[in-house]
Amino acid sequence: MIMTENTVEISAKINSKITQVRVTPILIADPPLLNIQGVHAPYAPRAIIEVETDTGEIGVGETYGDTDYLSVAQAFAPELVGSPLSVNGLRGRVRARTESVELQRVDAAVDAGGLRGPRSLNKIACSVASAFEVAIYDALGHLAGLPVHALLGGKVRDDVDFSAYLFYRWAEHPDGYGSDVPHDDWGAALDPDQVVQQARRMVRDYGFTSFKLKGGVFPPDQEVAATKALAEAFPGRPVRLDPNGAWSVATSLRVAAELESIAEYLEDPTTGTAQMAEVARGTSLPLATNMCVTSTEEISEAFRTDAVQVVLSDHHYWGGLRATQDLAAICDAFDVGLSMHSNTHLGISLAAMTQVASTIPTLRYACDTHRPWQTEDVITTPHVFADGKLPVTGTPGLGIELDRDSLQRLHQRWAGSPIRDRDDGVAMRRVHPEWTQPSW
Amino acid sequence: MIMTENTVEISAKINSKITQVRVTPILIADPPLLNIQGVHAPYAPRAIIEVETDTGEIGVGETYGDTDYLSVAQAFAPELVGSPLSVNGLRGRVRARTESVELQRVDAAVDAGGLRGPRSLNKIACSVASAFEVAIYDALGHLAGLPVHALLGGKVRDDVDFSAYLFYRWAEHPDGYGSDVPHDDWGAALDPDQVVQQARRMVRDYGFTSFKLKGGVFPPDQEVAATKALAEAFPGRPVRLDPNGAWSVATSLRVAAELESIAEYLEDPTTGTAQMAEVARGTSLPLATNMCVTSTEEISEAFRTDAVQVVLSDHHYWGGLRATQDLAAICDAFDVGLSMHSNTHLGISLAAMTQVASTIPTLRYACDTHRPWQTEDVITTPHVFADGKLPVTGTPGLGIELDRDSLQRLHQRWAGSPIRDRDDGVAMRRVHPEWTQPSW
Ligand SMILES: [Mg+2]
Ligand SMILES: [Mg+2]
Repeated sequence: MIMTENTVEISAKINSKITQVRVTPILIADPPLLNIQGVHAPYAPRAIIEVETDTGEIGVGETYGDTDYLSVAQAFAPELVGSPLSVNGLRGRVRARTESVELQRVDAAVDAGGLRGPRSLNKIACSVASAFEVAIYDALGHLAGLPVHALLGGKVRDDVDFSAYLFYRWAEHPDGYGSDVPHDDWGAALDPDQVVQQARRMVRDYGFTSFKLKGGVFPPDQEVAATKALAEAFPGRPVRLDPNGAWSVATSLRVAAELESIAEYLEDPTTGTAQMAEVARGTSLPLATNMCVTSTEEISEAFRTDAVQVVLSDHHYWGGLRATQDLAAICDAFDVGLSMHSNTHLGISLAAMTQVASTIPTLRYACDTHRPWQTEDVITTPHVFADGKLPVTGTPGLGIELDRDSLQRLHQRWAGSPIRDRDDGVAMRRVHPEWTQPSW
Repeated sequence: MIMTENTVEISAKINSKITQVRVTPILIADPPLLNIQGVHAPYAPRAIIEVETDTGEIGVGETYGDTDYLSVAQAFAPELVGSPLSVNGLRGRVRARTESVELQRVDAAVDAGGLRGPRSLNKIACSVASAFEVAIYDALGHLAGLPVHALLGGKVRDDVDFSAYLFYRWAEHPDGYGSDVPHDDWGAALDPDQVVQQARRMVRDYGFTSFKLKGGVFPPDQEVAATKALAEAFPGRPVRLDPNGAWSVATSLRVAAELESIAEYLEDPTTGTAQMAEVARGTSLPLATNMCVTSTEEISEAFRTDAVQVVLSDHHYWGGLRATQDLAAICDAFDVGLSMHSNTHLGISLAAMTQVASTIPTLRYACDTHRPWQTEDVITTPHVFADGKLPVTGTPGLGIELDRDSLQRLHQRWAGSPIRDRDDGVAMRRVHPEWTQPSW
């Protein structure tokens, strides 16, 4: 082949390699949201990934910044230098790298980076891989001149529906965190009326048309009352309740019976596949999970026993955007529904969630997102929900631009802070020293 | 955003639409290969798909050319005009289109386009969609300046292993097909010695290092003898036998016991998921299938009952390259192995098979391919196996170029011929009028 200028350019693109990888830990402001593990502390760690190619493209990704995740990300980053913009096999490569990293909290029963059942090396590796995968897709999109959704086979919808993610919460973080503790004007939400008020503001500000209440905070009857209040306040609008596995099988069955005609689905009423299967056998209400099915190894048992009817995907859990599509295919083959989970994240991940959600024909539920609770971002033009939706951007890559000033500021906060891990229980015990994780 | 020349170009790429779609039926020469359905006739129909974009890119795909497939392809083609280069949702669109097409052979127990269990509208739609999907990926690759594997997340290997696909066969097609009947110099293969001879030539010419014998032709003991002869002639090399469901459960168990220490896997010894599960419970030999698990609807029962240990993917069956990756993910989640099926195909499909195979980390078996049996092609530079492998091309798209002269010649053959459907039974009964499909 004669090497014209064009073929040289094509060849450079095709053979493009990653030349630099940056991992930047940051702390982001977080409001005092309540959940079964306690309360969100004022700051949560995230890790921002950048990959840069010899052709000058930069791609960005985002994942948990807690110590173990950060350690693996930092250990893996140099290994990616010299690699092509390829995502297949990435999880396996990160997983292999975890072997050489001294991890601190692998055996913790719950994960500070999210409620996803027992921790494992594989889960940590998938979460780390997800950020590199998204960054690679972003860079490849810039290189190819295509949006990420086109690299995932193309969008099947022009906008993605999100759900109002309602939280029991305090109005302010407690005293003792210092002078620059973040705050917002959402006020407290501790009873059904306040939850409905929070929902009304979510609807007014962002147009959400469905609701998810994070439960596991108060005794089940109070949370059922709040769920019913939402259903009454917004007739015909889908409502979900998620107590993060707080309940026994008996309690779950009792609540399920009460919500059968009201809720869209019941999310993780109880803990573990065996108990979920028991509840599923006793109710017609679909059971959803982001706790007992959060990694490939957990699928087979859950699907064979019909323990769950909806899996909440999360590219941070499953290892990236392709892994999310894989999960969609697995669910489809077993007639299991697909929804999307979220915990504390910024605009990079929201862009990634929106891109992948747009490509999955079987995603028929509104996606969860914590984004409205985050007052900070690391992208220059943060997303704005309208009618509860985000448009699927059609510009190259993720369609976002890193705000380097903001990144630097949030990294400085991390560098100047002793906070390295999210621990909602510790935050809760600052206020209630005797607090332990509830169950009903 | 200021529209520079560059942004105009990027925008044109991103918004690129399909402006023309061509479906060209052809007849390709085929040798007299024997199988449970009879014998390959001298010519087999294929359909070649081209999609052309407003940016001038052309992408090509290939699938069955039998009447029902061709009818659906021709009916769907105009619908694709105006669409972006997007593959997600394509199967659903083709499936919807089948409703308006009068199909002839949907209820046939076996499929002239391949042995894949009971036919269904969905299976036909998937096969048609696969060719459009491959063509779209090829065009998108040219548009983006990336090989198809990069659009599938990137290769995890630089070459793909193929298996020598051995057939019982006649030396020549029988008389009565006219003067220009195709022939080759492979000679007959009707006993173990001749099968080993065929294998030796496959090794000599192409370097294959594993073997698959298509069975279901002679009584099981003869095929076991041929399989053992192969294992003896090529010690340590993987050998497989595929009688296409010809055997009862009892026969299957007897053969499995004989081949347990010899075969890599036993392919479709018996018919249907229930019988396969029964055989699987009685042998340690992995059972593979491209008959009882050939579409998404068939997965759940087979995996829940552990009926198969290896699924043979085929992008023509499953609806394309992304669907093949989906299947890989489903198999991985259920600890089921993945191999790759083939029937009569040309270089377009071989390029597509190679690209997708290169992207699947869990594909650990050599892929099947009929390609050595095809003396014709529709690409300018047909593939050449070396060491039983094909390199994964790194040029844009599928890395092939359509040979328009050849395409035209093979289409003229189709236009001048009454042959519209492959029917190995009809071909067999020209020689043996009393022949019926065997079972043991
Ligand atoms: Mg949840
Ligand atoms: Mg087969």
